[in-house]
Amino acid sequence: MIDVLPRESASIWLDLIETTPSLVFDPAMCRHKWGALTRALPGVTLYYAVKSNPYPDLINTIAAEGGCFDVASSAEIKMLEHQGVHPSRMIHTHPVKTDTEIERAVNSGVTTFVVDNVDELWKLIPYRHVIQVMLRLSFIAPDAPIDLSRKFGAPIQDALSILDVANDSGIQINGLCFHVGSQAATANTHADALATCLELSKKVKEKGLPEIVQIDIGGGFPAHYIGEPVDFDSFCAPIREVLTNAPDHIQVLAEPGRAISAPSMALVCKVIGRAKRRDGWWFYLDDGVYGAQSGRIFDGMHYRMSVFTSSNEQSGCVFAGPTCDSIDELGRYPKFPVLNMNDIIVFHEMGAYTLASATQFNGIAPPAVVNRALPGQIREHRLTF
Amino acid sequence: MIDVLPRESASIWLDLIETTPSLVFDPAMCRHKWGALTRALPGVTLYYAVKSNPYPDLINTIAAEGGCFDVASSAEIKMLEHQGVHPSRMIHTHPVKTDTEIERAVNSGVTTFVVDNVDELWKLIPYRHVIQVMLRLSFIAPDAPIDLSRKFGAPIQDALSILDVANDSGIQINGLCFHVGSQAATANTHADALATCLELSKKVKEKGLPEIVQIDIGGGFPAHYIGEPVDFDSFCAPIREVLTNAPDHIQVLAEPGRAISAPSMALVCKVIGRAKRRDGWWFYLDDGVYGAQSGRIFDGMHYRMSVFTSSNEQSGCVFAGPTCDSIDELGRYPKFPVLNMNDIIVFHEMGAYTLASATQFNGIAPPAVVNRALPGQIREHRLTF
Repeated sequence: MIDVLPRESASIWLDLIETTPSLVFDPAMCRHKWGALTRALPGVTLYYAVKSNPYPDLINTIAAEGGCFDVASSAEIKMLEHQGVHPSRMIHTHPVKTDTEIERAVNSGVTTFVVDNVDELWKLIPYRHVIQVMLRLSFIAPDAPIDLSRKFGAPIQDALSILDVANDSGIQINGLCFHVGSQAATANTHADALATCLELSKKVKEKGLPEIVQIDIGGGFPAHYIGEPVDFDSFCAPIREVLTNAPDHIQVLAEPGRAISAPSMALVCKVIGRAKRRDGWWFYLDDGVYGAQSGRIFDGMHYRMSVFTSSNEQSGCVFAGPTCDSIDELGRYPKFPVLNMNDIIVFHEMGAYTLASATQFNGIAPPAVVNRALPGQIREHRLTF
Repeated sequence: MIDVLPRESASIWLDLIETTPSLVFDPAMCRHKWGALTRALPGVTLYYAVKSNPYPDLINTIAAEGGCFDVASSAEIKMLEHQGVHPSRMIHTHPVKTDTEIERAVNSGVTTFVVDNVDELWKLIPYRHVIQVMLRLSFIAPDAPIDLSRKFGAPIQDALSILDVANDSGIQINGLCFHVGSQAATANTHADALATCLELSKKVKEKGLPEIVQIDIGGGFPAHYIGEPVDFDSFCAPIREVLTNAPDHIQVLAEPGRAISAPSMALVCKVIGRAKRRDGWWFYLDDGVYGAQSGRIFDGMHYRMSVFTSSNEQSGCVFAGPTCDSIDELGRYPKFPVLNMNDIIVFHEMGAYTLASATQFNGIAPPAVVNRALPGQIREHRLTF
């Protein structure tokens, strides 16, 4: 989806930033999405998936809303602590961890961990009296473009035997979790998986194993990349229906990342070079697949564009990023305005899995981030500590 | 290509490092490859392509051999200066640059730049009295897996008109350059393109345009990823043949990156998790496609492996990286030793486009780098300044 707008209108973006490329963080949008998803999932505790975007002001915005956090590494825990988030508001949901990683997380005060196999269980034995564990199960969402059910998750038919082994080893597994995959088209798989977990929790009780008191329904809540804006309330309806059958003693968790972080940032970049080549006009932008557009490569996403130009001519074109690598190409369009040097392009819904996976290839630093509520100030972002 | 070796033999690698994952830099190998390519291309000045691996000790090793440097950004210039390399030993070969980028490079003292279109020429006008420029031409190497002729390079038939425009604008274009693509199977395209440039330089002289005094034959020199080790002497034979026809006043340059940096580093990592899943054993390593293995994604390369294990069993398996993302998968093997926790895998030829494009996704820092000549010391590497 491409909007073509007058070149002068770019000032609404350019006035916010010092230089291109910049990501503009909108805390109001972040709060709005957090609120909407909270209301769409009443009684569910939301743990923001830090991995999708660890930008400190975004973390602070969610923390101020009373949000909790889903972490995948001790570096993320450290970063959150640096932002004043107490470890009691974090869960560590990575199913595979090094011993060092576990030791650091436990020492920080995080008490909830995830396993999906017995080899991982053994690593947790030294900490069994101070932690609780969730068992990750594998469910396939046929409508999610990113399948997370292959790399992680025990098959449902192995669940009871893993819970048995854990119990024999003195490890308290009292939670179940899953991740149906990213950017799900519907919440049907969430709902089915939640129902299956509720069924399983009955069997667990019948077997006399430690009672299931937590079910984490993971992420997969969509951002608005194409088509109509996402309505969390309708999206979550199938989940709410199953929730009515959940016994009171089971706390339900969710781990939205993309749904919150994607709409909270837009990328402002400009045309820094152009050349007419064999296959049409090439427009070179100051951000590409080694920068914030790394999401195209790692995350498979494409972003809505607003193009600010005074050009009236149209032509076939290729967009490319600023590095000297041939993979750094952003798309081909059979018909596009023939852009001029310094024309502005804003990519929307750019907060998730973009800055988080940016590189420094060619010595080019990732885009600066500007907080829309603090115009003119470039806020430091450090991804590791 | 996979070697299976006894688990205890891993000590030859583990003794060099403090922790896994680590990249081990071998300065002797770096010098060896630099020397071999220098001898294979007599009379050609080698400019190491910094983008392939900007690790400071590697830069220092090449600088100590009297090498020159090909840079793609002012950040790379700054980094080289920090290592004591004088700007007179650098050329800036990125065909598309921002005004700021050009200003910074000129202020640093770099005097050679590249263009491939007239829009780029205009940017150089303010500096026309202090710089010289090479015109990048586009040649397609049918045997190079990475085609660099689409994104950059003027078609040969446009060359004289661009040189004309430059001359009228008072910009001195006295060089020609090209890049036939990465990891070329033969140097036939190098040789053909060099011959075409020599022909063109005659026409340039006939037309009374500023004489061509430099031809840069770019990179594309291969590393040893598969098959037999690379013999630079045989590989470069076609280039040497054309060089015998080059007039004395033309200085020939080349920009090897991968051929030098790839063999100079190996990646030592270990199994940090394993699980038997629907599709066989999954082995989780402590480096993956968001780390040094980013070269698999961005650069399309696969690396030779040495596996150190005491396992005798074989099974189908999947290798995966340490992040929670499903794209972080390293390969599937129908038959592989069933590895144990902490078994070691060394990936060879891992110096090019690996560390240079590593991310910090999940808060996981890129692998540490250890200089083999300075065992036990982890050397700082900073990609941007």
